[in-house]
Amino acid sequence: MPDFARRISKMQASADVIRQLFESMTDPQTISFGGGAPAREALPVEAIQQIASEVLTRDKRGIQALQYGNPIGVPDLRKAVIERLLQPKGLRAGMENVLIVSGGIESMNLVSQLYLEPGDVVLVEAPTFVQAVQIFQLFEARCVACQTDDDGLVIDDVEAKIKALSPKMIYVIPTFQNPSGRTTSLERRKALAALGSRYDIIILEDDPYSEMRYSGEALPPIKYFDKTGNTLFVNSFSKIFSPGSRLGYIFADEHIIRKVYDVKTATNSHASVIAQIICAEFFNRGLYEPHLKKIREIHRERRDVMMNCIQSMFPPEIKSIYPDGGLFTWAQFPARVNTTTLLQDALAEKVAYVPGKEFFVEDKDRHNNCMRISFGGVTPDNIRIGMERLATVIKARM
Amino acid sequence: MPDFARRISKMQASADVIRQLFESMTDPQTISFGGGAPAREALPVEAIQQIASEVLTRDKRGIQALQYGNPIGVPDLRKAVIERLLQPKGLRAGMENVLIVSGGIESMNLVSQLYLEPGDVVLVEAPTFVQAVQIFQLFEARCVACQTDDDGLVIDDVEAKIKALSPKMIYVIPTFQNPSGRTTSLERRKALAALGSRYDIIILEDDPYSEMRYSGEALPPIKYFDKTGNTLFVNSFSKIFSPGSRLGYIFADEHIIRKVYDVKTATNSHASVIAQIICAEFFNRGLYEPHLKKIREIHRERRDVMMNCIQSMFPPEIKSIYPDGGLFTWAQFPARVNTTTLLQDALAEKVAYVPGKEFFVEDKDRHNNCMRISFGGVTPDNIRIGMERLATVIKARM
Repeated sequence: MPDFARRISKMQASADVIRQLFESMTDPQTISFGGGAPAREALPVEAIQQIASEVLTRDKRGIQALQYGNPIGVPDLRKAVIERLLQPKGLRAGMENVLIVSGGIESMNLVSQLYLEPGDVVLVEAPTFVQAVQIFQLFEARCVACQTDDDGLVIDDVEAKIKALSPKMIYVIPTFQNPSGRTTSLERRKALAALGSRYDIIILEDDPYSEMRYSGEALPPIKYFDKTGNTLFVNSFSKIFSPGSRLGYIFADEHIIRKVYDVKTATNSHASVIAQIICAEFFNRGLYEPHLKKIREIHRERRDVMMNCIQSMFPPEIKSIYPDGGLFTWAQFPARVNTTTLLQDALAEKVAYVPGKEFFVEDKDRHNNCMRISFGGVTPDNIRIGMERLATVIKARM
Repeated sequence: MPDFARRISKMQASADVIRQLFESMTDPQTISFGGGAPAREALPVEAIQQIASEVLTRDKRGIQALQYGNPIGVPDLRKAVIERLLQPKGLRAGMENVLIVSGGIESMNLVSQLYLEPGDVVLVEAPTFVQAVQIFQLFEARCVACQTDDDGLVIDDVEAKIKALSPKMIYVIPTFQNPSGRTTSLERRKALAALGSRYDIIILEDDPYSEMRYSGEALPPIKYFDKTGNTLFVNSFSKIFSPGSRLGYIFADEHIIRKVYDVKTATNSHASVIAQIICAEFFNRGLYEPHLKKIREIHRERRDVMMNCIQSMFPPEIKSIYPDGGLFTWAQFPARVNTTTLLQDALAEKVAYVPGKEFFVEDKDRHNNCMRISFGGVTPDNIRIGMERLATVIKARM
């Protein structure tokens, strides 16, 4: 067989990690803080069942759900995005500004298709979302990490790297970041939007977690401060509706959406219409807002239990980040602790997490003392049991 | 904003045509022979409604349908592919050889991601499927057309172009081809598989229509004759289940599927699990085989009505292809007739088709006298009315 294309050889390293992540979630005896899935109790199964059985009939909409669709997405769902998800954030969009994609990951893939040339530099947070890095690498971009602190990306470092490297794009998850759980401050958001405009760089703002806020005040997205269209706002329905439906959206200027349309057509025509119509109906029936209230309560309790466990069970040298929302916290150990080797002990005790170094694009081994701990997919009781196991393993090593 | 990547500028031409096609399908007064959709009467709405309402409950499978899935696809659906779709064609596959994708288009996109470098040559049929060409162009490949006759690709021409151009891939729809309706002969299938092996070229075999046979004997796929793994067999559930679910699959050697897994992960994680589980259940409940019988009957009638209309209404100088299955026929007019300008007259009379030149990658204007006529999505009565309109328009021009 002919060789794989050059781009394929560049993506190997992270793909193995992701596969391992998927596999660690399948052993029923292991309590996994490794996944990024929301609580199964937070999935609106009954509502989806009800909608599916009412919508999938031999009338116009039922037939529409099963026939080919328009690459830009089902109008009702784009309208729900505009009115129920963007407007509450202060974002004003027309129907020509929103395209439905097959999950948040795909939005990053399509934006990369649109803009990235081999050798382009993409600035990312340190740590950052590993699957996004994998996508940028598939397009043969060079990911360069910028410093972060408790307020998000350190602007001086970002600007210095812009001047030194002329990046094409900056990738950022400003709210309840994956993997750190951190939130970028208001001032930094303004500054990032301004940097995008001043240096004509794409700010790829990925916002899958912001609805899942359990404490503190909501902040406007970076896109809110964007005056030039350089910020592309991408999002997912995975956390607020269901990961398995594979739905998300891109909000951008019309001339960009028109090109995304072409690339989406050449990727897979359009997102599953069945999933789109069920999701649109979920919003139209007024089910989203009470659902959001419910899933915030479910995940807030898990966040609280997790943070209490860390405080009461972990040795005090371990620093953790208190997340105001989302699914993750981040723990930093003394430098002598290697969380990659520690994982083997943890798996033997039937508890899992993701070693922190996997989320860094540079100097991975300098970050061998961190871990991402996900609380979203684990019940409060299992959080307590799993954290006891993890604390035992940690104490034996420290 | 930064410029779009170079690959984007290469795909413009065909994207406009595809957008036009989508739009021509929305005027309810126009009888469109332009689309590629199956009959709405052939969509298993009731079965899908029933399955959805039974499967989407708060048990293991219902939760699975809404949670993240594995990039390779739902096991039950891969098993159905192997036992119900591949085995009857004489193709033997293991679970490690089949990956579920989000529609047939995506399978071509993923294979292109895997193998195509800018400048690579892809040999295609003349005429060929315009969306596939758009994908190859997105990867900056150069599409070169090979001669076809009533038996499919002319092997001598293919081999001459292999020697002259060292192509990376040959793209072929051997059965009820889009747009021509033609079927590649048994001998040519053997020859294509052998060429792939001898010259170490990928044969990308796209097979969305072969189940939809209304007359004649089924032929084994090219993949059946492949001894080296050079033929990648890709397929879609759009015609046999539903286009809107966006499901398809890739059948290939395990080391290739492992790489497709990585690229699928970096494209959109996995196909919609809701759609996959409903489709798997459709097969598991034994609904597929009677459904296939029904949709063959529906489309056979349309094919027969269409071919009778062509024979009785079109001037005898117009040559058409008699398709043994699928959704399309192809008409060739005397050289003086320009089907692109004729389309304006046709649209004024509320009937649509696709001008033939759009399906050629070279010398488009030499093929200005052809048209693709789709009968799949039009009822028998409307086929008669639409063909009368079209015949009137044609006679006024000839």
